Amino acid sequence: MRQAGRYLPEYRAIREKTDFLTLCKTPELASEVTVQPIDIIGVDAAILFSDILVIPEAMGMRLEVLESKGPVFETPVRDLTAIRALKTDGVIERLNYVMKAIEATRQKLDGRVPLIGFSGAPWTLATYMVEGKGSKSFEIIKSFIYSEPAAAHRLLLLLADAVIDYLNAKIKAGCDAVQIFDTWAGILSPWDLEEFSLEYIRYICDRLETNGAPVIVFAKGVNSFQKLAGLKCDVLGLDWTMDIGKVRAEIGTKKALQGNLDPCVLFAPKERIKEETEKILAKFGRGSGHIFNLGHGILPKAPVENAQYMVTCVKQLSLKYHRPSEFTL
Amino acid sequence: MRQAGRYLPEYRAIREKTDFLTLCKTPELASEVTVQPIDIIGVDAAILFSDILVIPEAMGMRLEVLESKGPVFETPVRDLTAIRALKTDGVIERLNYVMKAIEATRQKLDGRVPLIGFSGAPWTLATYMVEGKGSKSFEIIKSFIYSEPAAAHRLLLLLADAVIDYLNAKIKAGCDAVQIFDTWAGILSPWDLEEFSLEYIRYICDRLETNGAPVIVFAKGVNSFQKLAGLKCDVLGLDWTMDIGKVRAEIGTKKALQGNLDPCVLFAPKERIKEETEKILAKFGRGSGHIFNLGHGILPKAPVENAQYMVTCVKQLSLKYHRPSEFTL
Repeated sequence: MRQAGRYLPEYRAIREKTDFLTLCKTPELASEVTVQPIDIIGVDAAILFSDILVIPEAMGMRLEVLESKGPVFETPVRDLTAIRALKTDGVIERLNYVMKAIEATRQKLDGRVPLIGFSGAPWTLATYMVEGKGSKSFEIIKSFIYSEPAAAHRLLLLLADAVIDYLNAKIKAGCDAVQIFDTWAGILSPWDLEEFSLEYIRYICDRLETNGAPVIVFAKGVNSFQKLAGLKCDVLGLDWTMDIGKVRAEIGTKKALQGNLDPCVLFAPKERIKEETEKILAKFGRGSGHIFNLGHGILPKAPVENAQYMVTCVKQLSLKYHRPSEFTL
Repeated sequence: MRQAGRYLPEYRAIREKTDFLTLCKTPELASEVTVQPIDIIGVDAAILFSDILVIPEAMGMRLEVLESKGPVFETPVRDLTAIRALKTDGVIERLNYVMKAIEATRQKLDGRVPLIGFSGAPWTLATYMVEGKGSKSFEIIKSFIYSEPAAAHRLLLLLADAVIDYLNAKIKAGCDAVQIFDTWAGILSPWDLEEFSLEYIRYICDRLETNGAPVIVFAKGVNSFQKLAGLKCDVLGLDWTMDIGKVRAEIGTKKALQGNLDPCVLFAPKERIKEETEKILAKFGRGSGHIFNLGHGILPKAPVENAQYMVTCVKQLSLKYHRPSEFTL
């Protein structure tokens, strides 16, 4: 999860010379920070450095990303006229810098580890586009879906179509797997979740041309995995509030699971990091189908040596759960 | 949930003349804003106006409550020395203004509706005391529980003892029911939730001298109600992400349920407010044991007329689910 970033001095050195969006848009730099954690932390896969909001930006919305405030859209989209004004043609062409970054990253990786690309899910993208920035109560997007459900669905559908094209293009450009993030899935009631979030993730999963690339869905805050288990995807992401053993017992071997260490564990003493890592490995138990990961993005203040230590723990401790001869799945 | 507050012009008129903490500490004013929603909104119970952080404030921590920033403790508690320095003797005496506010409120209510008092749960109080203010990632409190678990448990235990005394005193002073809020329960992994949050709620519930006053537990973000169903309390609060019908099916008639309308529904058009209200009533179904409520505090910008309309809807629509002759529980 979000491997590159402020917790690495090597990343900060590059960010000092360039703003966030320019970094996303410059393939040479984006690929450089993408590869940093492979060498420094020792993780088993690279995650292409980017931002989920490049899609609305490519649709013509002016985006500012300030690390102090998070992303801000100068002019949020709040009615049908604004939705109609979004430039839905040529989005993938305008996102060509992402494909160039994928190519540059593959060269730098030289086959060492696979490369994962991601996209925000329509609901999360729409939330940012309508609110204009992060929110605590999300009353603007919710007023919008309650007051103008038809307009909301129009926005979600055009985003879903863009996400399909975007992820297909990423896979074609060389991503070995893709992840769909629905950061704000957890703010919805069970029926709104179904109507405004899951319906569009389902739409995307049903239409991706994966060419065999695994699809990971992470709908943060969704507390019923039964709902996610029916999606046409390969992996489900878990934040740290779920018991990975119970989720495995609940949904069986239909999906691999990704997660689910609390990112704050990286602030713990070493022995505690080891303990918590083993707890999750043990909860998942023997057999394949577990991608060990943090349950959300790594925090800017996480000590690098603790991230390194956690990765070492996973590699050592997981051997007893993942010996090929003992696979139970 | 948090009935008094910024959404009412009548509340804002009083707040313009006094700061938040003074309002909490002035029985005449606290009782006045407590009673406002009974007359204006038409709700069936009053919730004593106060703040969960009056307990740490009565332990000697300097508290500032700015509506723009939320509550801030000037000097957070982050080690054993600071925990030892907390003034745990005489807390209830220093909170006597709350008991005076209860008495003043009962006079103003004159038996019209019952009065509910509340307290923060130890985990949520400790989170604010250690972080010093609200947080997005909660890395300071989590570092603390991982690095110094013994000190953390010492803090949680002294808070639990204070909460018991506080709620007992509230019941004695005239509260008809009490609620324990664990706003930050949902940020913990399943095992940390058990160790640092639920264990202390259980400790409190086992020791309250209720004299028959119902006890409501609201552990926000907890996604397994089985864990809460064993507590010695009468009612469980639900936020809006849970399906109240499923929770009822899961835990049976052991507990009454309180909730669970999304507070953002109050920004919807009237027909949608009615629809969402009925949806929840229908999901709970026939029989007693449902306290209709928002799934969290009412938002400052919620239109008063929509809150009034929602209450009217509940009173009208719930008749068919709650006719005494048809109680199925």
